[in-house]
Amino acid sequence: MATTFWTRRHVLSLADFTPGEYDTILQTAASFQEVLSTRTKKVPALQGLVVANLFFEPSTRTRSSFELAAKRLSADTLNFAPGTSSMTKGETILDTAKTYLAMGADMMVIRHRDAGVPQAIAFEMDRLGVRVGVLNAGDGQHEHPSQALLDLFTITSLLNFEYPRLGLLADKKIAIVGDILHSRVARSNIWSLTASGAQVHLAGPPTLLPQLFAEMGAGRLGELVLHWDIEPALKNADFVMTLRLQRERMTANLLPSLREYHQRYGITRDRLKLCKPDIKVLHPGPVNRGVEISSDLMDDPQFSLISQQVTSGVAVRMALLYLMGGGKN
Amino acid sequence: MATTFWTRRHVLSLADFTPGEYDTILQTAASFQEVLSTRTKKVPALQGLVVANLFFEPSTRTRSSFELAAKRLSADTLNFAPGTSSMTKGETILDTAKTYLAMGADMMVIRHRDAGVPQAIAFEMDRLGVRVGVLNAGDGQHEHPSQALLDLFTITSLLNFEYPRLGLLADKKIAIVGDILHSRVARSNIWSLTASGAQVHLAGPPTLLPQLFAEMGAGRLGELVLHWDIEPALKNADFVMTLRLQRERMTANLLPSLREYHQRYGITRDRLKLCKPDIKVLHPGPVNRGVEISSDLMDDPQFSLISQQVTSGVAVRMALLYLMGGGKN
Amino acid sequence: MATTFWTRRHVLSLADFTPGEYDTILQTAASFQEVLSTRTKKVPALQGLVVANLFFEPSTRTRSSFELAAKRLSADTLNFAPGTSSMTKGETILDTAKTYLAMGADMMVIRHRDAGVPQAIAFEMDRLGVRVGVLNAGDGQHEHPSQALLDLFTITSLLNFEYPRLGLLADKKIAIVGDILHSRVARSNIWSLTASGAQVHLAGPPTLLPQLFAEMGAGRLGELVLHWDIEPALKNADFVMTLRLQRERMTANLLPSLREYHQRYGITRDRLKLCKPDIKVLHPGPVNRGVEISSDLMDDPQFSLISQQVTSGVAVRMALLYLMGGGKN
Repeated sequence: MATTFWTRRHVLSLADFTPGEYDTILQTAASFQEVLSTRTKKVPALQGLVVANLFFEPSTRTRSSFELAAKRLSADTLNFAPGTSSMTKGETILDTAKTYLAMGADMMVIRHRDAGVPQAIAFEMDRLGVRVGVLNAGDGQHEHPSQALLDLFTITSLLNFEYPRLGLLADKKIAIVGDILHSRVARSNIWSLTASGAQVHLAGPPTLLPQLFAEMGAGRLGELVLHWDIEPALKNADFVMTLRLQRERMTANLLPSLREYHQRYGITRDRLKLCKPDIKVLHPGPVNRGVEISSDLMDDPQFSLISQQVTSGVAVRMALLYLMGGGKN
Repeated sequence: MATTFWTRRHVLSLADFTPGEYDTILQTAASFQEVLSTRTKKVPALQGLVVANLFFEPSTRTRSSFELAAKRLSADTLNFAPGTSSMTKGETILDTAKTYLAMGADMMVIRHRDAGVPQAIAFEMDRLGVRVGVLNAGDGQHEHPSQALLDLFTITSLLNFEYPRLGLLADKKIAIVGDILHSRVARSNIWSLTASGAQVHLAGPPTLLPQLFAEMGAGRLGELVLHWDIEPALKNADFVMTLRLQRERMTANLLPSLREYHQRYGITRDRLKLCKPDIKVLHPGPVNRGVEISSDLMDDPQFSLISQQVTSGVAVRMALLYLMGGGKN
Repeated sequence: MATTFWTRRHVLSLADFTPGEYDTILQTAASFQEVLSTRTKKVPALQGLVVANLFFEPSTRTRSSFELAAKRLSADTLNFAPGTSSMTKGETILDTAKTYLAMGADMMVIRHRDAGVPQAIAFEMDRLGVRVGVLNAGDGQHEHPSQALLDLFTITSLLNFEYPRLGLLADKKIAIVGDILHSRVARSNIWSLTASGAQVHLAGPPTLLPQLFAEMGAGRLGELVLHWDIEPALKNADFVMTLRLQRERMTANLLPSLREYHQRYGITRDRLKLCKPDIKVLHPGPVNRGVEISSDLMDDPQFSLISQQVTSGVAVRMALLYLMGGGKN
């Protein structure tokens, strides 16, 4: 496996990822995808190591994906569940992380509703001089790197199954549609996609797509364009990523009704006619059927990559844990 | 192991189970029971496979039993916990199941408070053309096949430890007592026991045992008889299965007080004198002591098979997962 | 490994532990500490055995520690979570334990908010004549033996890393400070430390340190002294154990404000000047920073043993499970 370009201990943000790092992950994930297609889906790469899943914000889906990735690398896993934890006893987050460190955790996968928590934990681990890798599994509205990497793996391995790599997206147009403002998935995807040289078009209602986002395109290889209507974003697009809509946003008057949202920004068969003929749709899940995307389209394998994203998730998370774990097979 | 009679992908209901299928399960469970009596209780049969326990309705007891069965077959397990899941985020049940499919689940064990959910998931898996087995671990008031199969294994292996089989019950009288109407356990047991040729006698208050149940006996090998008093059901019985009483039923005016229920339908030493001398009592658990059964009787190993039922549960669930997984050792 | 002095099936209380038993645990834990420092941290000692963690009172920290200990001994683990359990369905605690017994649990780790529950379960297992070990992981305000044993291992292996043993504390002064009355950790530590011949000094406010505690010193090798001021307890101490303060105590008027508590009984750099120069501080965690101990002191590796305690926890729990499991490597 090509691990030449990997020296990172933590994966916290994609803002400063290099093309070599992206390609290392994509190729490592491709190898693991192959392992997963055999009956015995395990490799002994991380035997004896402990991966602690510290999900301060609950998420069965993402935790299951990381847990399965860890198990298939033969690591042991420890799950921290906030509901039944000392958090309610007044312990600080750093103290919780240090407790798992002291128990013997070799890697920590952190999700928290506040931006910056995984960074703070990684900083503390470095300060303590311990060799523990921290992986950001979603922090507030900041980033969700493993989701953007699995999206990247899904689309690049569709373009070249054997040899997925960042450069494959250089001439592609990719639309990201929805509640950009509150989406950590969107932020991480903007970093990876603009690093690839793709043209990245954002579309969403003005309240959910402030002009400020244009700044994320500064100095990036690819172009970043903002639209308050969906049509120009979709026109001739190769891929469209639609984002989960948090229903809470409506009560905050940031959104009209769900029906009106669907009419203006929902992905439908009609709208896809604006795109290239082989357009593919991604969604990080869970989907509000009939809101972000029409229900029949979501289930149509000609257009939807949603299942592939979940499958890619296990391979990409195996790749991340493997590389962070010092990855030798 | 005899797997001649097994071609099923899913185990959803016992309504159409064949004698060959029952006997295959019973004999496979008997083999695993032997494995469990050795110190190293594991077999590598399902190594690399993933069993997803999707318990939309929580149940520590049944989930633990399935989890242990899966681990002893060397499968990996993923547990879905509704409280911390995307269910609260508006995802449909089928989408949750498809997410676990995409992650790589090879088998799904489903419990849901609504009848038909495991069937709907199995149907969807078949429609998608994937080779994933679905096991109904209790759906509403419909069925709970693994419970009835472990009951069947418990009593047939009592009759013949080496060679448990359906035919052993051909001349037996078995009483099922309690809240038949709301019991998925009762329904599954009625299918298996009437398939064996046993005489099955149901007893319960009229509000909890509608005349309609007599129809389940139509065309079955064994006889099905209904009673609103417990005495004729117990008379000369070989086995009595008492059902868990949901306390909620009382508030719905379907029941008199718990004390009155116990007086009329509770299993006591006195009542057991109506039965054959070697009468044995089963209960699916958890037991309301002093309601369905008197407390001392529950703990009396001369009469109670309740512990054996739990032990049988692991062996029978190993057999089910093994057979559904394509079972070669 | 030295297992000469081990014949116990259950670990429920340290009140009657013998020096030979303490030393067996300490030396077994020292061996496992070595295993944990290798990359492949597993031993096959308990392969095929099932450890059931029955935490009726939730505790992520302690449960994770036991779970990891069990996994590193290659045991399978089953976790019982009260929130989603039959407890809410009216099942008794003994019935829950017997269900896990019938499923095949070989050892049970029990935590409950009421004193005596692990004892009751152990008694029931013995009555049933089954060879199942029960470990008290904290019962009400009674005992928490594995915590006191990990404290003992932490300080004795600091004194002699290769050969930790009870006798090393014979001439030491150890202060235990805080809410002694409500602390199961304090009770277990009083048993182990007075068995070692150390001078044990308790300090706390009169409401939280009744004179009654002096009786625990009767007939013990070491001396037990009570103080309502902290200073005499700290004077020339070798080790100070500070206890977690339950915030609920304040509302019960047993305590002044947290600030006042910290002023009178909090461990600070200034106060440590009363102790021996190489004084070390222990805390069972989770810590209320700035209450039981000043925040900077907690993080100072020159004084704080808090991380080592957590690390010791895994090794000591491995030792306990190993010895209870009949321990042959």
